[in-house]
Amino acid sequence: MERQRFSMSCRSAPLAVVTILGVLGIAKSVAAQAFTDLQTPDTPLVLKAQGSFFVGGEKAEQTQVELGSLGPGGHITVNQMYVRYMVPLGGDGSVPVVMVHGATLTGKSWETTPDGRMGWDEYFVRKGHPVYVPDQVGRGRSGFNQAVLNNARAGSAPASNLPPWLRFSDEVVWPNFRFGSAPGAPYSDTQFPVAAVDELSKQGVPDMSFGLPRPSPTIEALSDLATQLKGAVLMGHSQSGPFPLEAALLSPSAAKGLVLVEPGRCPDTYTDQQIATLATLPVLAVFGDHRDTPTGISTRPSWQISFDSCQALIGRLKAAGGDAQMLNPADRGIRGNSHMIMQDKNHLQVADLILQWIDEHVSKRRSGNK
Amino acid sequence: MERQRFSMSCRSAPLAVVTILGVLGIAKSVAAQAFTDLQTPDTPLVLKAQGSFFVGGEKAEQTQVELGSLGPGGHITVNQMYVRYMVPLGGDGSVPVVMVHGATLTGKSWETTPDGRMGWDEYFVRKGHPVYVPDQVGRGRSGFNQAVLNNARAGSAPASNLPPWLRFSDEVVWPNFRFGSAPGAPYSDTQFPVAAVDELSKQGVPDMSFGLPRPSPTIEALSDLATQLKGAVLMGHSQSGPFPLEAALLSPSAAKGLVLVEPGRCPDTYTDQQIATLATLPVLAVFGDHRDTPTGISTRPSWQISFDSCQALIGRLKAAGGDAQMLNPADRGIRGNSHMIMQDKNHLQVADLILQWIDEHVSKRRSGNK
Repeated sequence: MERQRFSMSCRSAPLAVVTILGVLGIAKSVAAQAFTDLQTPDTPLVLKAQGSFFVGGEKAEQTQVELGSLGPGGHITVNQMYVRYMVPLGGDGSVPVVMVHGATLTGKSWETTPDGRMGWDEYFVRKGHPVYVPDQVGRGRSGFNQAVLNNARAGSAPASNLPPWLRFSDEVVWPNFRFGSAPGAPYSDTQFPVAAVDELSKQGVPDMSFGLPRPSPTIEALSDLATQLKGAVLMGHSQSGPFPLEAALLSPSAAKGLVLVEPGRCPDTYTDQQIATLATLPVLAVFGDHRDTPTGISTRPSWQISFDSCQALIGRLKAAGGDAQMLNPADRGIRGNSHMIMQDKNHLQVADLILQWIDEHVSKRRSGNK
Repeated sequence: MERQRFSMSCRSAPLAVVTILGVLGIAKSVAAQAFTDLQTPDTPLVLKAQGSFFVGGEKAEQTQVELGSLGPGGHITVNQMYVRYMVPLGGDGSVPVVMVHGATLTGKSWETTPDGRMGWDEYFVRKGHPVYVPDQVGRGRSGFNQAVLNNARAGSAPASNLPPWLRFSDEVVWPNFRFGSAPGAPYSDTQFPVAAVDELSKQGVPDMSFGLPRPSPTIEALSDLATQLKGAVLMGHSQSGPFPLEAALLSPSAAKGLVLVEPGRCPDTYTDQQIATLATLPVLAVFGDHRDTPTGISTRPSWQISFDSCQALIGRLKAAGGDAQMLNPADRGIRGNSHMIMQDKNHLQVADLILQWIDEHVSKRRSGNK
């Protein structure tokens, strides 16, 4: 394993070039985002409230070894979900929006972009919505159950039983997140800020989803969160793209709208009864551009497959009388959006389209129900 | 391993009682914090800016197996530090404060308290200071290097080489964090909101610090952060209690003040030259009450040992002409503070004492230097 230190100061060379050289093993140092890249909005952010809390969780009894020998055996909490929130002043009447991140990532996905622009979390708040950003169970500030690791370390369980810990390499991100067909070769129209792609790399954390109970405890936690909020728009991304559907099946009256951003798949296994339930809710799927290109990951040949699965689900929902639609910015002449559409250079343009959909399909429907 | 589901609704029984019963194995359900426990301040929070970014990090080249087989081998970033920040409107002239959490925890420590009150992060912002809350490298949103885990899983490295993953049990937290001498038996004067102790349990994440390079990359990242901020007060807690000292030795001109909250230890190994460097900076150590009681952890018989080590360091710094002092609220008649002093019921009272110290020892000194 080779390590190379970041230099904090080599801003003179274009970052994309440095990255390419790094991939080729030519240059050792990689430029990092300067703190001064962080952009400050022109107007202050006025919050009624902000903070964090947890949803869900179970008690697990563990041995001294399972606790890493930090004291004798006892109980801990596992499978809880961390949630950070911001409520705008005057935003009580607007529907809350819950934003869930994808594989190998955390809630950071929705915060400040890799090149220092305002994240969707703040933008949706500035547009009047309370925003709730969880870390999926097992990642970020939502801990995981470490017992299996300490047992393997102690030799009391086989290491082959450990879950895999997933990371996307910097190289595979280029075709898989559709920044370009190969590392360092962006699409001419890419909307991703590729000069800051090394900042996206820093957002990566090991993903032990395969070590979690199935289905992911995040789904029930999202359902509980929507119920506690007395209704919320649930937005998932990539790995968590289908989670809003699954959470809505647990609490259809609390899920006021489902936004599936670049889901890895839209399920094709729902029963007619499940479809009938989901057809009571407004559903929006959102996909970026360049979906036909190979991803570099053999188990997912292209993102067009994901798109097609969502088109099929939308078709079933509409046939059942549902309000479901696809938001494909390319259809509107907005080209070059990536898998990380919430971080793209035109991310606020895409956010506005989603906000407009929430206004027309969720907010007006809610006020009409009053 | 036994698991028990949280009930979201059994608020009728006092939580501490339920917890004791749970520890004794009598009751299976444990009450969880209601979303409605979250308190909303009377006045809005007005921010010039908020968001998040990373400091530090290195590139690591990994095999397909080391990446969890999510695509072919390539590079990832490891040892970067996530930082969330809030800058109050009009706070540009105030010294920023960086708050670093302790073992088995994340930056959540400084956010909303377990019983739903405002965290120190927001309180310091409301008092005019830009606040930066990192997750230590290897925890929370600051990823870790998962290669060793995947290699052990694949059988290409011995599992005995894995680092331990540390968690404090709910039971050991009571004596070790000094809520009471035994689980469910709070000190009569405890300041910790023990009815919400199960919410503190949810803040726990596995701590693989022993698997990190030594010294912890968090220390250099803190030094870099203070430099990027053009000066900051560095505040550490428990495990990270000595980190401000270590970071200041790397960038003494950027560390404007060091606040050591309940540090696990104050180092006794500094050379006279290091002491001379640290003596140029204002240093405050902060300790709670009930330090003489056994912790339940054999390697740390009592917190009085930590207190004494900091008194010794303060003595050395003062002998070298330094501005170093102990803040022991019990000396002022404020009794019952715990190890989690930033979450105690009187946490704002303690915060005010620290803010006063910053004002007198850091801010006035800075303006005097202008």
